[in-house]
Amino acid sequence: MAIAAGMKIQTLTIVGVGLIGGSIGLAAKQRNLAKRVLGVGHRRVSLEQALTRGAVDEVFLNISEAVHQADVAVFCTPVDLIAEQILAVAPGCKPGTLLTDAGSTKAALVQSVADGFAKMKPAEGVAFVGSHPLAGSEKRGVKYADPNLFESRVTVVTSPPVPLPESGRGLGEGLDRAVAFWKALGSKVLVMDPDEHDKALALTSHLPHLVAAALVGALTPDLVPLAATGFRDTTRVAAGDPTLWTGILLQNREAVLSGMDHLGVHLDQFRRALMASDRIALDQLLGQAKRLRDSLDQ
Amino acid sequence: MAIAAGMKIQTLTIVGVGLIGGSIGLAAKQRNLAKRVLGVGHRRVSLEQALTRGAVDEVFLNISEAVHQADVAVFCTPVDLIAEQILAVAPGCKPGTLLTDAGSTKAALVQSVADGFAKMKPAEGVAFVGSHPLAGSEKRGVKYADPNLFESRVTVVTSPPVPLPESGRGLGEGLDRAVAFWKALGSKVLVMDPDEHDKALALTSHLPHLVAAALVGALTPDLVPLAATGFRDTTRVAAGDPTLWTGILLQNREAVLSGMDHLGVHLDQFRRALMASDRIALDQLLGQAKRLRDSLDQ
Repeated sequence: MAIAAGMKIQTLTIVGVGLIGGSIGLAAKQRNLAKRVLGVGHRRVSLEQALTRGAVDEVFLNISEAVHQADVAVFCTPVDLIAEQILAVAPGCKPGTLLTDAGSTKAALVQSVADGFAKMKPAEGVAFVGSHPLAGSEKRGVKYADPNLFESRVTVVTSPPVPLPESGRGLGEGLDRAVAFWKALGSKVLVMDPDEHDKALALTSHLPHLVAAALVGALTPDLVPLAATGFRDTTRVAAGDPTLWTGILLQNREAVLSGMDHLGVHLDQFRRALMASDRIALDQLLGQAKRLRDSLDQ
Repeated sequence: MAIAAGMKIQTLTIVGVGLIGGSIGLAAKQRNLAKRVLGVGHRRVSLEQALTRGAVDEVFLNISEAVHQADVAVFCTPVDLIAEQILAVAPGCKPGTLLTDAGSTKAALVQSVADGFAKMKPAEGVAFVGSHPLAGSEKRGVKYADPNLFESRVTVVTSPPVPLPESGRGLGEGLDRAVAFWKALGSKVLVMDPDEHDKALALTSHLPHLVAAALVGALTPDLVPLAATGFRDTTRVAAGDPTLWTGILLQNREAVLSGMDHLGVHLDQFRRALMASDRIALDQLLGQAKRLRDSLDQ
């Protein structure tokens, strides 16, 4: 991969060294992408685990201290904190620093950073490019970090970058570098508009999460022995961190609500077919779903 | 296991030698539970696969021919065919034959068999006991059969048996033998009323299936690249056989419809919390779901 092979980062800073941040560190070191990897966290025990696992070379409790040394900084903190953290550190960043993130929603975050950047004057070439590696898990913490986590997975990189490059200079170096960064970690990259990303993820991730939680909510504890593999698969994501997911759902509130309406239409088709005992309609609805589901594994 | 160890079947007949039927055959032979295992199917190619895999010793295209030789016969055919098949062969069964099944719904099936038995006169001691091993999969066919499929999995055995034992004789030998049979295959056994089973499975299996299919239905093909692990887990069951599942949903129509209402209440709690941007309510709903989901893995 020409772009990936060409990328070399002097100092990579990872803010939030959990499953995703830790995997970025391990992948960056294994692939020789960065000379130094700095990790930031607010819990000493997590930072020590990250050091022990070799995901980072040095650790910091202060975000600015670590990000101001970076050529590339990636924020892997809860999505509703990222914009605020970026705006707090941006003024002190070195010229040309690329700021990116791993948050599950993009539109509100990118907008907040754009609004903030318009009011301040970061150094020349400091850019924020939103990213979302589709490599989450219900697991948390650096102990689950994996240098191959991004291998063959999709990372969405949002365009345009913040700030908008001056006219006539294309989409700017920041976007190219963000794409190269994720590719260098092993990821496939899709460049998308933040709104388009959020609408898509409402249907592919946020709504399934909410539905899984509702399915578990509808279960009473006495039924637990009767919950077999199918139930476990269907509801696995509901074991995800509640606070993290509350943030995601609220950041993408409108798209999730409209996804719920959309799902409601499909559930109603099943309801009508069941009420009418309409074998042909049910078979057709299940058949359509099977064909699309089968295509995911190809 | 005292009961299991004591059970020894002269001739076990398996009607429908797919994933479940084939696994019963493999488990019975590996555990030395039956002297002869007969397999019945309507496709020669599946029967030959079952022979090749060693899941059965002899194969038959005619159900009666194989079941009339059996001491125990287990029907692993689509759930909406089982009652009819059992009633067709019951009159010619040997005295004391235990008939059981692996269907995913129980109330309508047990009722149909009871109604049919009341009108005929099977030989002395011929009994039907409904069963449901919770060991399904979206996979089909004897090639996925596994002698350890039932190991540590729950099988529900329904009570009372059909016909009802004469008063003063407890729940009858049939029920004891059905429990011993599934235990001998490695299963944990829960004895339940058929209605209670169907209401529970509506929530733990049929509703999750329907919701998974609706989630896939709500996806457009352009979003497929953005469907990551979470979506794949949540919708895995939607790859199940549409005709089989149409039968299951129709057999358990009322419980599934009332399960949909029940799920609707839980989805509405999320909707209201989202509309109000109520962080505390969302966190609480997701937290409750996480705690129950975590308990499934313990």
